[in-house]
Amino acid sequence: MLEMRKPISIGEAVQRIMDWKRTGQTERISINDSYGRFLSEDLIATSDVPHFTRAPYDGFAVRSIDSQEAGLNNPVEFEVIDHIGAGQTTSKVLGEKQAVRIMTGAMMPEGADAVMMLELVKTSERDGKNYMTIKRKIKKGENVSFRAEDAKQGEVLVKKGTLINPGIQAMLATFGYGEVPVAKKPIVGLYATGTELLDVNDPLVPGKIRNSNSYMIAAQIERAGGEVNYFGTLPDDFDTCFDAIRNALAKVDMLVTTGGVSVGDFDYLPAIYEKLGAEVLFNKVAMRPGSVTTVAQFEGKLLFGLSGNPSACYVGFELFTRPVIRTMLCSNKPHLRKERAVLDTDFPKANPFARFVRSTTFFQDGRLMATPSGLDKSNIVMSLAGANSLMILPGGTRGFEAGREVDVLLLEDQEGSEWPW
Amino acid sequence: MLEMRKPISIGEAVQRIMDWKRTGQTERISINDSYGRFLSEDLIATSDVPHFTRAPYDGFAVRSIDSQEAGLNNPVEFEVIDHIGAGQTTSKVLGEKQAVRIMTGAMMPEGADAVMMLELVKTSERDGKNYMTIKRKIKKGENVSFRAEDAKQGEVLVKKGTLINPGIQAMLATFGYGEVPVAKKPIVGLYATGTELLDVNDPLVPGKIRNSNSYMIAAQIERAGGEVNYFGTLPDDFDTCFDAIRNALAKVDMLVTTGGVSVGDFDYLPAIYEKLGAEVLFNKVAMRPGSVTTVAQFEGKLLFGLSGNPSACYVGFELFTRPVIRTMLCSNKPHLRKERAVLDTDFPKANPFARFVRSTTFFQDGRLMATPSGLDKSNIVMSLAGANSLMILPGGTRGFEAGREVDVLLLEDQEGSEWPW
Repeated sequence: MLEMRKPISIGEAVQRIMDWKRTGQTERISINDSYGRFLSEDLIATSDVPHFTRAPYDGFAVRSIDSQEAGLNNPVEFEVIDHIGAGQTTSKVLGEKQAVRIMTGAMMPEGADAVMMLELVKTSERDGKNYMTIKRKIKKGENVSFRAEDAKQGEVLVKKGTLINPGIQAMLATFGYGEVPVAKKPIVGLYATGTELLDVNDPLVPGKIRNSNSYMIAAQIERAGGEVNYFGTLPDDFDTCFDAIRNALAKVDMLVTTGGVSVGDFDYLPAIYEKLGAEVLFNKVAMRPGSVTTVAQFEGKLLFGLSGNPSACYVGFELFTRPVIRTMLCSNKPHLRKERAVLDTDFPKANPFARFVRSTTFFQDGRLMATPSGLDKSNIVMSLAGANSLMILPGGTRGFEAGREVDVLLLEDQEGSEWPW
Repeated sequence: MLEMRKPISIGEAVQRIMDWKRTGQTERISINDSYGRFLSEDLIATSDVPHFTRAPYDGFAVRSIDSQEAGLNNPVEFEVIDHIGAGQTTSKVLGEKQAVRIMTGAMMPEGADAVMMLELVKTSERDGKNYMTIKRKIKKGENVSFRAEDAKQGEVLVKKGTLINPGIQAMLATFGYGEVPVAKKPIVGLYATGTELLDVNDPLVPGKIRNSNSYMIAAQIERAGGEVNYFGTLPDDFDTCFDAIRNALAKVDMLVTTGGVSVGDFDYLPAIYEKLGAEVLFNKVAMRPGSVTTVAQFEGKLLFGLSGNPSACYVGFELFTRPVIRTMLCSNKPHLRKERAVLDTDFPKANPFARFVRSTTFFQDGRLMATPSGLDKSNIVMSLAGANSLMILPGGTRGFEAGREVDVLLLEDQEGSEWPW
């Protein structure tokens, strides 16, 4: 009655999945919608920045050579021949002891090679002409932003696979990317299985619980950058599940199911994978929670059979499904970011397998600390709410003491890790 | 010609703004859309969890008293009187030496007080009846999830103002929140001013630059949790700007403008505030970049006059506008999260005022490190792209050496700080 499954290591499990990873596809969307998406091509400078030499401050554009005699006791007077704001240009060319009043961002007039700041000049008017006087020398190039000093046309400025943040939005606009090439969001199908599942709007009845895994996983898919295609719940019935899963596969890039992967009498997923002709990559992993996680591939599409237990489901998604989604978003660091943290409290629980403990990480004087975010019973939904990380406690030990260093996986991070296993 | 402005401290500036903060309003949205929003009411347990006593593992529900004689050399046999999966219940009541085969999550039958795990029993069949045999004692309550052990009806589980993460989505579903009370996104109006501004799709011409601040700020508004109402660009013309700003105010919760706040000849915002009858809260802050940031209030609505300089604009938004948005999202930690980090590289620049340096923070063996993310010329858009933090270098010094501790404000963080100044 009891099927014996051979557990494999987490790293091996992730590797078997990543052998089936697929790269992302590009779609072009308006820059108005691109914040929070992932670049699918390198961002290249389409022009120099600045693309003309300009004044970085308000002041007077001058020829530096004309200021060489200036000193505290030797004021030098310039005739002000024009006055330009940002966005304006002048057709005048500076001659000897001539200046142009210029505002921040305006293009330098021909002949000028320095800007005297507004605060350092005295202005006057005489016979309908404007003058300004300086009492110090200025060097060639002083207070000038030169063409291409920030970026040169053709330069790669941001690598593909990068999440578009506000700074990158600014760059996209600067270089005229009204349409932005971003990675198409992979479509992740989602089914929750289990006769015990009620809908969120159903009243509670004895023996049944509301389906919470679907909403949790849907949010995890969104956080990872995927698009959710939620198909609903399935009862523990072989034929119904088989047909539903076979039909769903055609509509998605990968399929997540929750429940039905254990060795209980109503756990049909393994048999469904078999009848489908899917190749089971593994059905047991040496970890807690989530040891019964089962992953298969069918015609190159991955089927993630996550546990129905909320904690196991959560961890299984983050370890196994997230990197596949992020790879399709062109990331070359698709795994959860792994860092070192100091355990803030004792964790006395014996630990035969590697254990992923939902944790809250925080800083203490710049040092990353981690504390378990609630009791770690695997069926406790509550402890998921405060978790921003998963603490990795290696197997084969008797518990851990506060002050010890541990690895943590950061759940809210957007940078990721290359290969943490 | 030069107006003298009196700079105030950053803390004082933030305080003057926060005197005009407003609390958020609630809207009820589908749980399908609530991930990433902010709870506007406490999340309360609408039932016990679990709401019935259940089996956390596959096995046999038994009366523990019947196992007291069991031992390696004294197997005890139970009659298996029913078989229930998750979501099923049994009407049978356990009598002496009777058991019910039970799957993970199923409700415990009446009379049973412990679950013997599947791996520890031997099953058999005789005369059409099912039996199972155990060789060890089991304690009352062993392998049982008791009603309300995770949460009690009426408990406050998550405080209002919390960002809804995947774990909270699961809790919302568990407690039947098909509609979720979330903070209405404040509507932030946005105008870019400047005759030099081209649209993202315009070809470059001498003296003009593409409007990048609007796209940057729009993304910053989104990141902060607000909704953008982008009104477009305005030329440096007093009457046009005045009418546009007065009309825009009626449609938004607050208004951000970029540019026009300096003391240049085409900087009209101060005069517009005056004609509008708005109260200027400050027009100069002792900081770099962003010292000319000007904030006013008109009929209780805040007008953020940010600098047209990209870096100053970016910093001004994060310090001054973000906390107002987050307060309307019910957060009681509305300011950017402040932490200590170790400066990773020398910063030799002299520093008369407090300086916010765009930085990349990262971990080195669990310690937060910060490195400037590019040259710190205030007009360089490029360095914004890699920034995930702002390093605060206090004023009045001659520069900073690698290894020194500095404060950093984390830009991508969702937790925030209460009052960091």
